[in-house]
Amino acid sequence: MANHVAGPEIEKLIKLLARLPGLGQRSARRVALHLIKNKDQLLIPLSDAMATAVDKIQVCETCGNVDSANPCTICTDARRDPSLLVVVEDVSDLWALERASVLNAAYHVLGGTLSPLDGIGPDDLNIGGLLARTDKGEIKEIILAVNATVEGQTTAHYITDQLQAQAKQASVINPDFQPIKISQLAHGVPIGGELDYLDEGTLLQAMRSRKEFS
Amino acid sequence: MANHVAGPEIEKLIKLLARLPGLGQRSARRVALHLIKNKDQLLIPLSDAMATAVDKIQVCETCGNVDSANPCTICTDARRDPSLLVVVEDVSDLWALERASVLNAAYHVLGGTLSPLDGIGPDDLNIGGLLARTDKGEIKEIILAVNATVEGQTTAHYITDQLQAQAKQASVINPDFQPIKISQLAHGVPIGGELDYLDEGTLLQAMRSRKEFS
Ligand SMILES: [Zn+2]
Ligand SMILES: [Zn+2]
Repeated sequence: MANHVAGPEIEKLIKLLARLPGLGQRSARRVALHLIKNKDQLLIPLSDAMATAVDKIQVCETCGNVDSANPCTICTDARRDPSLLVVVEDVSDLWALERASVLNAAYHVLGGTLSPLDGIGPDDLNIGGLLARTDKGEIKEIILAVNATVEGQTTAHYITDQLQAQAKQASVINPDFQPIKISQLAHGVPIGGELDYLDEGTLLQAMRSRKEFS
Repeated sequence: MANHVAGPEIEKLIKLLARLPGLGQRSARRVALHLIKNKDQLLIPLSDAMATAVDKIQVCETCGNVDSANPCTICTDARRDPSLLVVVEDVSDLWALERASVLNAAYHVLGGTLSPLDGIGPDDLNIGGLLARTDKGEIKEIILAVNATVEGQTTAHYITDQLQAQAKQASVINPDFQPIKISQLAHGVPIGGELDYLDEGTLLQAMRSRKEFS
């Protein structure tokens, strides 16, 4: 009885809302009621925005960002420097760097980090796509903007190895080949911290004092 | 730039999500990204559930509950005692009492409390609807399950006065008229507390030891 007091439609709405990050059963009920009470101002616009998201939002085949355009707004932005590529773990990190307005670069979203314990290997991340992009020769510098976690650092080292192997092959074919400059965010990023939780000043500082791999 | 990096559709979704109770700008971004990443499992079902809510959810004209049926599931539930009416401030309080399975009664949702400072008077609440229901003679007992706040208590006293005036008039016409028994939740409800935040045991206790107005 208690579970069906509000009718199956509201119960279903509450159940789905409770699966959102940061919401529990109780807050999901509050959100559902707030939506129902503010039908015109909130429920209808949000319902429409979600329907639009269902129809339009896609993953950019170039960089892994999410957008209504594919290639995404960032990939087609002519004001960005196409020779500078920032590699991030997740779209949320891309958003965090963009909010900090750190630099006008292109991005590459890996979609996670290497984590052997969780069975996540190189093929589970968008590393092949990264090497395909660097293979074209336009990219001159890569900033590995990964989290300062063990997995992030492991992933950064793996990518560095792959890029250096690619550069070695390229220099065999073309002796004048200039290897891509690879750097990583400075340790202004707190150890164990995640980019998405940092303030913009810290991100800016970390980006400015990024250190090159020797 | 930073505000439009994700495209207007995602920005709009984030902006609307940030207006939900308990969500800020940052958590709205997390929720939006979580929805986009879990399109089939979460975004599409939630979008559908919201569209259904837009179409179907309405306010019950009898009691003020929200439901896909009007009169609502509770008002048409034949297993409930129609002579016992529980008056609550808000639908969330109705849900809280139902979760506690306190009793098998009908409800009446006031839609708020008297609050002269906020300009909320009797006409802004569903008190007229309550008196219309009690006027029919079927209701024998009313439990004023209002919050233990100054506004809640003021509202309870106002309703009690109105019901007693109604009973006085009725007894002029019919000398055998039996006045409605009016009680209020016992002070197991913490002073200043709101029903929706209480555990079910406390609600049950407060309901059992409810005290009658002298
Ligand atoms: Zn892109
Ligand atoms: Zn009803």
